[in-house]
Amino acid sequence: MIDLRSDTVTRPTAAMRQAMAAAPVGDDVFGEDPTVQQLEERTAELLGKEAALFVSSGTMSNQLGVRVHCQPGDEFLCDADCHIYYYEQAAYAQLWGVAAHPLSSDGGLPAIETLDLAVRPDNLHYARTRLLTLENTHNRWGGARLPQDDVRAACDWAHGRGLATHLDGARLWNAAVATGQPWAEAIRDLSAPFDTVSVCFSKSLGAPIGSALAGPADLIAAARRTRKALGGGWRQAGILAAAALYALDHHVERLAEDNARATRLADAVRHTPGLSLLADRCDTNLVVIEIDPAIGTAAELTERLVHHAVLMTRPAPQRLRAVTHHDVGDEDIERAIEALRAVI
Amino acid sequence: MIDLRSDTVTRPTAAMRQAMAAAPVGDDVFGEDPTVQQLEERTAELLGKEAALFVSSGTMSNQLGVRVHCQPGDEFLCDADCHIYYYEQAAYAQLWGVAAHPLSSDGGLPAIETLDLAVRPDNLHYARTRLLTLENTHNRWGGARLPQDDVRAACDWAHGRGLATHLDGARLWNAAVATGQPWAEAIRDLSAPFDTVSVCFSKSLGAPIGSALAGPADLIAAARRTRKALGGGWRQAGILAAAALYALDHHVERLAEDNARATRLADAVRHTPGLSLLADRCDTNLVVIEIDPAIGTAAELTERLVHHAVLMTRPAPQRLRAVTHHDVGDEDIERAIEALRAVI
Amino acid sequence: MIDLRSDTVTRPTAAMRQAMAAAPVGDDVFGEDPTVQQLEERTAELLGKEAALFVSSGTMSNQLGVRVHCQPGDEFLCDADCHIYYYEQAAYAQLWGVAAHPLSSDGGLPAIETLDLAVRPDNLHYARTRLLTLENTHNRWGGARLPQDDVRAACDWAHGRGLATHLDGARLWNAAVATGQPWAEAIRDLSAPFDTVSVCFSKSLGAPIGSALAGPADLIAAARRTRKALGGGWRQAGILAAAALYALDHHVERLAEDNARATRLADAVRHTPGLSLLADRCDTNLVVIEIDPAIGTAAELTERLVHHAVLMTRPAPQRLRAVTHHDVGDEDIERAIEALRAVI
Amino acid sequence: MIDLRSDTVTRPTAAMRQAMAAAPVGDDVFGEDPTVQQLEERTAELLGKEAALFVSSGTMSNQLGVRVHCQPGDEFLCDADCHIYYYEQAAYAQLWGVAAHPLSSDGGLPAIETLDLAVRPDNLHYARTRLLTLENTHNRWGGARLPQDDVRAACDWAHGRGLATHLDGARLWNAAVATGQPWAEAIRDLSAPFDTVSVCFSKSLGAPIGSALAGPADLIAAARRTRKALGGGWRQAGILAAAALYALDHHVERLAEDNARATRLADAVRHTPGLSLLADRCDTNLVVIEIDPAIGTAAELTERLVHHAVLMTRPAPQRLRAVTHHDVGDEDIERAIEALRAVI
Repeated sequence: MIDLRSDTVTRPTAAMRQAMAAAPVGDDVFGEDPTVQQLEERTAELLGKEAALFVSSGTMSNQLGVRVHCQPGDEFLCDADCHIYYYEQAAYAQLWGVAAHPLSSDGGLPAIETLDLAVRPDNLHYARTRLLTLENTHNRWGGARLPQDDVRAACDWAHGRGLATHLDGARLWNAAVATGQPWAEAIRDLSAPFDTVSVCFSKSLGAPIGSALAGPADLIAAARRTRKALGGGWRQAGILAAAALYALDHHVERLAEDNARATRLADAVRHTPGLSLLADRCDTNLVVIEIDPAIGTAAELTERLVHHAVLMTRPAPQRLRAVTHHDVGDEDIERAIEALRAVI
Repeated sequence: MIDLRSDTVTRPTAAMRQAMAAAPVGDDVFGEDPTVQQLEERTAELLGKEAALFVSSGTMSNQLGVRVHCQPGDEFLCDADCHIYYYEQAAYAQLWGVAAHPLSSDGGLPAIETLDLAVRPDNLHYARTRLLTLENTHNRWGGARLPQDDVRAACDWAHGRGLATHLDGARLWNAAVATGQPWAEAIRDLSAPFDTVSVCFSKSLGAPIGSALAGPADLIAAARRTRKALGGGWRQAGILAAAALYALDHHVERLAEDNARATRLADAVRHTPGLSLLADRCDTNLVVIEIDPAIGTAAELTERLVHHAVLMTRPAPQRLRAVTHHDVGDEDIERAIEALRAVI
Repeated sequence: MIDLRSDTVTRPTAAMRQAMAAAPVGDDVFGEDPTVQQLEERTAELLGKEAALFVSSGTMSNQLGVRVHCQPGDEFLCDADCHIYYYEQAAYAQLWGVAAHPLSSDGGLPAIETLDLAVRPDNLHYARTRLLTLENTHNRWGGARLPQDDVRAACDWAHGRGLATHLDGARLWNAAVATGQPWAEAIRDLSAPFDTVSVCFSKSLGAPIGSALAGPADLIAAARRTRKALGGGWRQAGILAAAALYALDHHVERLAEDNARATRLADAVRHTPGLSLLADRCDTNLVVIEIDPAIGTAAELTERLVHHAVLMTRPAPQRLRAVTHHDVGDEDIERAIEALRAVI
Repeated sequence: MIDLRSDTVTRPTAAMRQAMAAAPVGDDVFGEDPTVQQLEERTAELLGKEAALFVSSGTMSNQLGVRVHCQPGDEFLCDADCHIYYYEQAAYAQLWGVAAHPLSSDGGLPAIETLDLAVRPDNLHYARTRLLTLENTHNRWGGARLPQDDVRAACDWAHGRGLATHLDGARLWNAAVATGQPWAEAIRDLSAPFDTVSVCFSKSLGAPIGSALAGPADLIAAARRTRKALGGGWRQAGILAAAALYALDHHVERLAEDNARATRLADAVRHTPGLSLLADRCDTNLVVIEIDPAIGTAAELTERLVHHAVLMTRPAPQRLRAVTHHDVGDEDIERAIEALRAVI
């Protein structure tokens, strides 16, 4: 099976397993796991923030990000297709009593004028607008990279209006590598405009489990406290942190290959009648394919692809999504292209 | 002052005050206030539902409506400009842990295709879509009446998808009167497609305080219980229920006058350079006026209108809202028209 | 029927109804109801606080009191028999995500040593202890007055530990009158140790509806905002505020009569074989009667009392509660005593 | 350092690390991790339930246990010293809007009469009582085993009153081993009276991370859904499940040694002047020591013990707690005993 459903399916390599098996550990609830501490410090430094917290998922780091900025009855502004609003079971409302204020955008970043109109007046009829969240790369916009000048402008606008800013950077690594800059420099730049940033080790980086929330020390302390209430405190988590550290050492630069393979697949889609790319773009490791209804539905195509040993997801009735990752090679991509052509 | 800010500003008439002063009362928390019981039974009957609950505001009846259909982690579909989403401080999230899923519409009623795409898949990544709420007449769409055929179709669609339906009918009385049918027949028809309906006595009907939620007996019992948790249980509420009963007897048919006065104002707006009507409509007692930026902003115009003893609100930077009601007569409307012309 | 179930059952007098009918009113959501403003100012002044908010019930003023001091994940210390914990449907948890930390007491006021051990350490395993709530007079302790020196000591202790303090003073009027001091002076003294105080107009004072929360201006502004989310914003509430103002003018001093009638009933209980007083006390207008199981249960006795046209409640399987109030006279008490003797 | 603070500090053994490194894994959010599946099936079978869910902590499995039985505004009955109420940051209120109803007990299990009086009447003044939670072994009662006949009686009573039952069995393994029965048989018996059971792999069993909630399939499906909202969904969690499976194979029977070492320590405490055992008991691997104030405080003693390279915690101002576990041997216990004697 060529599994292009998500980069979450990657399995740890032998070397990564070895790193886990050898990790020094302690009780992280007592703050005594040296490997977790190392990962948190390194992540904070990479993202240019005071502190970081290692957690079990991107949903947890995002929702803690929302929580540290918002109280019940507050709302956050976001793109209507962002992961926090779309794919996280409305945890912001379910757990925190916070409301989302989703906005339309072209490419994942709502225009400043849209944002400006969206801030609620200071009046007891309205939720209090407290936070702007952005997502980079943007999942439902096909792994799109947000234009960094626009990101900076949006965050400046937000801070000027008294709002905090949070970045869902689940695949920020892919964005950093795609800049062409040295990635460590790039990821720091991409994070700079935001108060808090969430990144994932378990998606494109290939670690088995884990994400991190980075930001000011006081907010990270608040997140650590709330993580405990969620049941997210974990004991000898150094086992998992070791995999994340290994990934930071060995799996970031190679994301250029994943990005390139996605581009290869995207180009083939562009030349396949009846298929097209969402927004005619492929910036990183996601390929979102629009299907001409004349060919069939996404449900039909994914089913047919299974018979060619290729797995994709369908984020909309006429859309397929393919994700390249550590466990997918050049040959797999060629076979996926053949399969796509075969099924239409 | 000619107060066109809202029909919530109406003061009880001498006759209404007399009705209140004479009302038999009891302890409504013990279920012993005969006037409240009479109002609840009459409201239920008018709206064609099993039961009704008298509460202190439209916000309370709407939010109880959301609560009886939804659990934490559920979401409701609604128009992005509806009162429940826009003006109620995100109480659905703040109090219940429920999320809104706002949708664009032309006129306040999202298209069936839009609704259909909005229902979340049954999967642990998503909030559970449980409820469709509509608003009739629609405040931010200028007191627009929803086309009843479309309302029926949307509610049929909702029930077919397993969703409940709630109507915010704060000014449903005005919609009923505008049908041309006998109002009691009309309001029953307008309510029929919905599981629960909220109506207000303190807006166009002119009672000092109070709204009601009507629906199936078990849901109204659940709402009564939750009302107590909100601190909305009230003792000798018959004093207020008497005003609502008086309004049902004496203030519904006269809404035709308010609607007519609003139409008179709307026609004048249509003929005033630099002003236009939102969607070029005035269906009931609200007039929402679009301002050509060349003339000025809503903030400027409302301020200038004050000097002409006319009060309006500004629901958007380039919009004014005027509401006709019991305490506004024909002459007031003429003076308001003159004032509008004078300030541009 | 002699209705001793609660002082909430009182019906407004003719004079009070007249005051309501004559009240100048405005839209209180816009802050324009002069009678509400007068009541809020007068209540704040009486209780010695900066500001006050008129709300629909004691549950609402208490729960808003909890809300302005606590965030989700915080807890408040309270007596295990207090109204906020016992009778308010756990609204503190249901609506605010706040936890109660109930403590045993002898008479309604936990000992300082008990309180001191109950404060949670500052550690992510624990809820944050933020508030101490007391109740005076104490409903389930038989309308007991809390010893004011002990109240002051408990509040000093709380403030010293960084906790806020809230008083549920639903029947604080009765406590004030019972001091023997001029009541206005007394009620100010009783309120002084607390940051926020809730008082009710609809219980012993005989107004049909309404309570108030008093405290610092910023907290009352926060409560006003949250009241709107609850649906507790009300329009021409001056109708109800007028009754409360009337009660402040005419119904406070007469509470001495209610207290005396309760004492008369309590004395009779003391001399009735098989009955005794809870804690052998009757401080104000509540009489809580312990029933010797040999005589029967509270369920049996309340049922038998109905046949003698006397209504009481049963706060526990072997307890009756009788409450004196505006609508109960000396003769009613004598008949209630006879009925009690008849049924045992 | 002899670390007796908790059995959560255990580090995975070389063999356990090997098992983790070799574990077959998949994406558990997609339900595709074979090792997680194996652990969940085995846990369900061991506890005699239909299904189980592997989660990151005992706090998560307990709070999910509360959530699947309770809605906002519901309450659960529990011992006032239980972990769910005492040590989990009031997550039941903070996240779910559920209230605790803590009760006194002698030994961790409230008497049936106490429970029976605690169920709230069915009336809108009260929270709805929905659940009884028990804890076995009981942490704050010194690792006490609950008498199984009493547990059965309490659960029968609960089911008879329409309440669900949940067991916090963080250290149920230690209780099972202490029965003298074959442990697999014992643990099934201990779980039998409960609807849902939480067990931990990361405490006495020595796995680095993880707990499980077991119960009926529909409730476990609901818990799985809510786990995702908490951010508790994890990808290649088979790495961690492998450690838990290893612990089930190799670390249960050896708990008899931990229990015996705790008994050895407890006996020494009994013979040390100024020290005594809480309730004069040591049933399993926890030793809770009462300190005569004449000797000093727990704060002083723990500090002095550090100088003797022994770590204990202080669950109360005059109490120490010592926990035996996989990383503590016979010699460590002897040295801890010497240290205790030295510091008093």
